[in-house]
Amino acid sequence: MDPYVIQMNSKGNLPSILDTHVNVGGRSSVPGKVKGRKARWSVRPSDMANKTFNPIRAIVDNMKVKPNPNKTMISLSIGDPTVFGNLPTDPEVTQAMKDALDSGKYNGYAPSIGYLSSREEIVSYYHCPEAPLEAKDVILTSGCSQAIELCLAVLANPGQNILVPRPGFSVYRTLAESMGIEVKFYNLLPEKSWEVDLKQLESLIDEKTACLIVNNPSNPCGSVFSKHHLQKILAVAARQCVPILADEIYGDMVFSDCKHEPLATLSTDVPILSCGGLAKRWLVPGWRLGWILIHDRRDIFGNEIRDGLVKLSQRILGPCTIVQGALKSILRRTPQEFYQNTLSFLKSNADLCYGALAAVPGLRPVRPSGAMYLMVGIEMEHFPEFENDVEFTERLVAEQSVHCLPATCFEYQNFMRVVITVPEVIMLEACSRIREFCEQHYHCAEGSQEECDK
Amino acid sequence: MDPYVIQMNSKGNLPSILDTHVNVGGRSSVPGKVKGRKARWSVRPSDMANKTFNPIRAIVDNMKVKPNPNKTMISLSIGDPTVFGNLPTDPEVTQAMKDALDSGKYNGYAPSIGYLSSREEIVSYYHCPEAPLEAKDVILTSGCSQAIELCLAVLANPGQNILVPRPGFSVYRTLAESMGIEVKFYNLLPEKSWEVDLKQLESLIDEKTACLIVNNPSNPCGSVFSKHHLQKILAVAARQCVPILADEIYGDMVFSDCKHEPLATLSTDVPILSCGGLAKRWLVPGWRLGWILIHDRRDIFGNEIRDGLVKLSQRILGPCTIVQGALKSILRRTPQEFYQNTLSFLKSNADLCYGALAAVPGLRPVRPSGAMYLMVGIEMEHFPEFENDVEFTERLVAEQSVHCLPATCFEYQNFMRVVITVPEVIMLEACSRIREFCEQHYHCAEGSQEECDK
Ligand SMILES: Cc1ncc(COP(=O)(O)O)c(C=O)c1O
Ligand SMILES: Cc1ncc(COP(=O)(O)O)c(C=O)c1O
Repeated sequence: MDPYVIQMNSKGNLPSILDTHVNVGGRSSVPGKVKGRKARWSVRPSDMANKTFNPIRAIVDNMKVKPNPNKTMISLSIGDPTVFGNLPTDPEVTQAMKDALDSGKYNGYAPSIGYLSSREEIVSYYHCPEAPLEAKDVILTSGCSQAIELCLAVLANPGQNILVPRPGFSVYRTLAESMGIEVKFYNLLPEKSWEVDLKQLESLIDEKTACLIVNNPSNPCGSVFSKHHLQKILAVAARQCVPILADEIYGDMVFSDCKHEPLATLSTDVPILSCGGLAKRWLVPGWRLGWILIHDRRDIFGNEIRDGLVKLSQRILGPCTIVQGALKSILRRTPQEFYQNTLSFLKSNADLCYGALAAVPGLRPVRPSGAMYLMVGIEMEHFPEFENDVEFTERLVAEQSVHCLPATCFEYQNFMRVVITVPEVIMLEACSRIREFCEQHYHCAEGSQEECDK
Repeated sequence: MDPYVIQMNSKGNLPSILDTHVNVGGRSSVPGKVKGRKARWSVRPSDMANKTFNPIRAIVDNMKVKPNPNKTMISLSIGDPTVFGNLPTDPEVTQAMKDALDSGKYNGYAPSIGYLSSREEIVSYYHCPEAPLEAKDVILTSGCSQAIELCLAVLANPGQNILVPRPGFSVYRTLAESMGIEVKFYNLLPEKSWEVDLKQLESLIDEKTACLIVNNPSNPCGSVFSKHHLQKILAVAARQCVPILADEIYGDMVFSDCKHEPLATLSTDVPILSCGGLAKRWLVPGWRLGWILIHDRRDIFGNEIRDGLVKLSQRILGPCTIVQGALKSILRRTPQEFYQNTLSFLKSNADLCYGALAAVPGLRPVRPSGAMYLMVGIEMEHFPEFENDVEFTERLVAEQSVHCLPATCFEYQNFMRVVITVPEVIMLEACSRIREFCEQHYHCAEGSQEECDK
């Protein structure tokens, strides 16, 4: 109950909850003026606040275990490439910020969708004949998160639904549910390199479906869809007339043996809002610069959706103007080697981690092709001590001081996500501790004795 | 209607709007799978987007007139102190940003409510015995706008109402209505230096009232409430048990002859969320750093409102980390002279503008005591050519190329707001053009011939 009311009335009889006029702080309320207002304090969070639920926070914050004090902690849990210091951004990127500061030109308010000049730079960078862009097709946002928020806010009303990948990035659900939008999960198939179960996807669509979220390359899977598979996804959207929110924050972060196809380059008819940002590719997630690219060659969104996005952007205005001012140099001057170095580092760590964990009994890593993650299947039948992936990863912290996120954080099961941005030695150390942990807890499943004898 | 559907079906018979299964792009829909989905494109903006209404944009964007080509444009309309270049931020502020960049420590994700160290700096800066603060009482946001958004989002459900000053800053209404929260306006009285009509304020409160917004110093009025008046406002809130959102973005921006009293220092019982930011006092509105200070000495908000704010902050994460990293030096190293110089410049411009316009027939400026604005009453009966303040300010643009915002932008009438951050010569030139305009259009009101003879 409300401690304040009780305290204020503690001298005499406690008011019942239904009392409308009680003394507060010694002042007596004036019934004639109160118009039915309850003259007692009762301040409760809104439904929106209550409905805002971040599964990662819920699981991580409720983790009851402490790391093993004899082993230094290795956190492979946060999708922040900067935490280990081994992946600094390029000096050109930092210099671009200093130049923007020195110019003194970027301290005032920008238009809420971003400076025209900065949006034009995004156009030069992403425009291509297959997916043409103009400045009016670009909206700058406070991180890719706000880009996703604005897209959902403009496309869906409370009571409608959106289609979200499972396993998938948890913020889709957090944002949608806070706005009263229902989330329907479509399955990604680990045995098919996390391709979409297209049939199941299509079966979820109904008249209340406001949009389909496609995240490519994927967090948490590190998977990259082929052109062919993307075309099949687009065919579903076209057939069912569902617009797409393409979360391409890991765009171009694919390993040398495959290619990232921006979704909008593969379709002339499906309207697509593509979300991206500086966070991952330029290794500055804290700077909070994101964007929406509006691809609408058939004029299906039309001016109404564009205007809606512009209006919504006016609620809190856009991203930091210094970063906006730096955008031109960031996009033009960052050397190709910077991108290549990041990718070859990630690829080598991915290979290393995949190789090490593929040899561990009871684990089934899925080889990634991009982004910064690797998903590892846990054959739970071989670890009967642990109820699920949450408990598995908790014990891994308690015994080996290695922290990976359980797939439950991504609405999935019996997997864990490993972040592969850590320095190589730490990656190796983590893998060997995971091996030790698994070897200690591995049990032969019933009826599969031969496997254990191997 | 939807041009796409018509185009796609233009070869044959047009489908009626009620048709649910039509050919789209040559592919025929599969009724068995469609589950009632209308297989035609129809993407409409959400109610939230439609309800997001910014009166300033609506009025300014619909302005039909062009400036007088023979006079250079003077814009006194935007509350952005950086536009004329005469009010640069302090070099220490810029240096703090460069140091944060060079440290390389502020590129990753911060906690969604901001770095602990940055929140502690806010505590050192604003803590005082009358309104104690700890780091957990501070939430960093993307500008003061997001601070206000989070406060409204946590305090009010759709269908509830909030109390907003009239004239007042338009974003309160924009944000509230987009969230389905009703806005009730309480009056500020120009004849009482824009003090609150307390009786009328109290009469608006009902059981659905979720919070009272107090903006001090005021945009658009430039007024600063006395301690005594603030205490009276607090008494209403205490009596009616309504929490306060104090918009103190212009805090400490008051002229030498008066004092800014942070609202929370005057109350021990009313729970207050105070919103502020770097935008105005440090003259960097584009950097988008704002904050919420939670004052809750009686534990009325309790953990629930705090947790609600934290959860809501996770939706799009906080402000740019470089600005967060710079905060310590910005707050500690900005020299006192910087603040004083800004204020004495504003004060001198305010005096100049007030003096000049007080002598103009038909105008009644109200002397400001802080912030960056001055409100000018327009005696519409003396300008019968113009229907209202909107038309008055439009003609002022057309004839004199001087742009002021009509008070209609602030839900008020027969006033216009003058921004006083412009260089002195421009301020003078603007005032003399306004004088010329008024002299040309001034008519004696009926029955007041003696006034015109003066
Ligand atoms: C798939 C995906 N989308 C969006 C985001 C959010 O990006 P930002 O930090 O720019 O808000 C992330 C961050 O991890 C992500 O993994
Ligand atoms: C009274 C008031 N509150 C809030 C704001 C918004 O501040 P910010 O630019 O930090 O979002 C403004 C901006 O003009 C304002 O005048």
